[in-house]
Amino acid sequence: MSVTAAQGFTAAGIAAGIKENGNPDLALVVNQGPRLAAAGVFTANRVKAAPVLWSQQVVKGGQISAVVLNSGGANACTGPEGFQDTHATAEKAAEVLGHSAGEIAIASTGLIGVRLPMDKLLPGIEKAAAGLSAHGGEKAAIAIKTTDTVHKTAVVQGDGWTVGGMAKGAGMLAPGLATMLVVLTTDADIDAAGLDSALRAATRTTFDRVDSDGCMSTNDTVLLLASGASGITPGQEAFAEAVREVCDDLARQLIGDAEGASKDIRIEVINAASEDDAVEVGRSIARNNLLKCALHGEDPNWGRVLSAIGTTSAAFDPDRLNVAINGVWVCRNGSVGDDRDLVDMRYREVRITADLAEGSETAVIWANDLTADYVHENSAYSS
Amino acid sequence: MSVTAAQGFTAAGIAAGIKENGNPDLALVVNQGPRLAAAGVFTANRVKAAPVLWSQQVVKGGQISAVVLNSGGANACTGPEGFQDTHATAEKAAEVLGHSAGEIAIASTGLIGVRLPMDKLLPGIEKAAAGLSAHGGEKAAIAIKTTDTVHKTAVVQGDGWTVGGMAKGAGMLAPGLATMLVVLTTDADIDAAGLDSALRAATRTTFDRVDSDGCMSTNDTVLLLASGASGITPGQEAFAEAVREVCDDLARQLIGDAEGASKDIRIEVINAASEDDAVEVGRSIARNNLLKCALHGEDPNWGRVLSAIGTTSAAFDPDRLNVAINGVWVCRNGSVGDDRDLVDMRYREVRITADLAEGSETAVIWANDLTADYVHENSAYSS
Repeated sequence: MSVTAAQGFTAAGIAAGIKENGNPDLALVVNQGPRLAAAGVFTANRVKAAPVLWSQQVVKGGQISAVVLNSGGANACTGPEGFQDTHATAEKAAEVLGHSAGEIAIASTGLIGVRLPMDKLLPGIEKAAAGLSAHGGEKAAIAIKTTDTVHKTAVVQGDGWTVGGMAKGAGMLAPGLATMLVVLTTDADIDAAGLDSALRAATRTTFDRVDSDGCMSTNDTVLLLASGASGITPGQEAFAEAVREVCDDLARQLIGDAEGASKDIRIEVINAASEDDAVEVGRSIARNNLLKCALHGEDPNWGRVLSAIGTTSAAFDPDRLNVAINGVWVCRNGSVGDDRDLVDMRYREVRITADLAEGSETAVIWANDLTADYVHENSAYSS
Repeated sequence: MSVTAAQGFTAAGIAAGIKENGNPDLALVVNQGPRLAAAGVFTANRVKAAPVLWSQQVVKGGQISAVVLNSGGANACTGPEGFQDTHATAEKAAEVLGHSAGEIAIASTGLIGVRLPMDKLLPGIEKAAAGLSAHGGEKAAIAIKTTDTVHKTAVVQGDGWTVGGMAKGAGMLAPGLATMLVVLTTDADIDAAGLDSALRAATRTTFDRVDSDGCMSTNDTVLLLASGASGITPGQEAFAEAVREVCDDLARQLIGDAEGASKDIRIEVINAASEDDAVEVGRSIARNNLLKCALHGEDPNWGRVLSAIGTTSAAFDPDRLNVAINGVWVCRNGSVGDDRDLVDMRYREVRITADLAEGSETAVIWANDLTADYVHENSAYSS
């Protein structure tokens, strides 16, 4: 499982003391080769954390030999000093591993606007390197948790090759790009261009369509590393599908563990004039606080779905909109439809179908409900 | 106070039985003339309630003789039958008052997707008409309340003329347009074009910049009626300023009484390249759920302000952004600024200043925090 499911990778997860509670907070993933190909996608937030700025440069070279990830601090909005901290982290890992710093990606997660404790992080890299193992994937996945209640890993087996990965993310979960830290690894023998193509296609319809709380992170990073250790070069289509499956699996795990959530909401927009319209409508529904409260209260309040659709620029006629909640068409032709009392809301998953009656395009957005627990968790996070 | 502060208006507020709890739910405002000039602005939501579609047509004629307002049901997403209900309401008021139905505006507020009980509403119009009084403004303001805890009225005195008004709105408070029901009256002798100009200018910087919960209503209506009863035609500038003051006063009252809120958040964006940039950034900050939770917890979490700014398309350099909370510049040049422990968060009003360091334009957006009370109130609203 995790980042060591594929051959040619070692990993470690340790407690470096970055988190005051002593929990694991530093992960190291190393590509043992023979290939060191890599691709990455990053947050679309224009306020980007220092490790994002650094790793974007690393990925441009198409090679990553190792990834250092820390929880306990985002190293975002920390100025030139924060960037120097990221640089020093890469230099330290390069020294310990005998690699080039320019091929070491860095990812950080935690509170924005606080410098990392470098006196703990740098010795932690030595400790992590000493613990590297071909079975270290689980420990690495545990070490990147913040408010995650469980660690998240996934794996898909190809024909003689494997794609595996780990993810963290529980709040500030929204789109634009992945809004989370994810490292995927494969032993397929694929070059950086093939990885980039597969990764962009996969994230576009998975992590990009997760919108738990509408808040886009400064630190989103999704990396895909290939070791080529299987010696097999699969067809691009089969490989891309495996990457998409791993991303989809991890994306669903993120929604299922979102801060304070009691419902996972699957919003499917159908019969849209374009895919962009479908995504815009899905996101608008996903971000409507009143609807998110209603679904928390197990109230199939389709009026709030319509009021959310009405704020978009998508093509639709208000008098032809149809909405189903958990399969019951509670709104037909923009007005009252089937009996809302028929909607069974007892389960964690809620399915909303919004029919725009304009075309044939579709998109699915995943969201969460809005709960008092979300408020409590996020009122007290940094204090 | 309220809609009867100006000469030439009568009003009433009664319990017609639309609300099951027996509270007042029907208001009537009548312009006694001699002038019947009027202007209106309406929700930008493309899913519009039947009374909005009706009143938009009425306002096009530039004359309104009376406004019928009901709480206890929004008459939105009710199909052709809902529009017929609005039409029948106007016809009934026309019959009782001896007016033309085409000059009677209708406004409704309450749950979306439910037909109004016309067997109660129509007799209620007769009852309200029988109770019309030049002192009825307060009762009218009380009858349009939904989850409002207090009724909202305001008045500004000109030189021999008056602008007064009433408002309701506590949830689904967002922009695009007013997101609330508001009736303003004046005895100034102004034609429909002058009213329209003053009203659009006023709402653009008051109701349009209230963003309590990011949710745009299907029923927003702001009407301005002139009786000309004072016989005075003030200068357009003085009149427009009086209208703006009344709108500003009512807008602040809406924020101060928003569902479940414990903080009123004044977000001032300064040194923007354009007013549009300032509004876009202000709204993005206003709608960031994580920030709204943090402010509820009295945590001056400026990192969440920066992450919200980063999602906009406004002109700015991340390394030149400055943010003050309650006057303390906790973020300077995109990084850690003054000591956050200096920020006093004990009071209901929280002031955020976001300095984009790009130009000289400014905008102020008002918002509320996100609380467990908001979640509770909106999880149980329709059930």
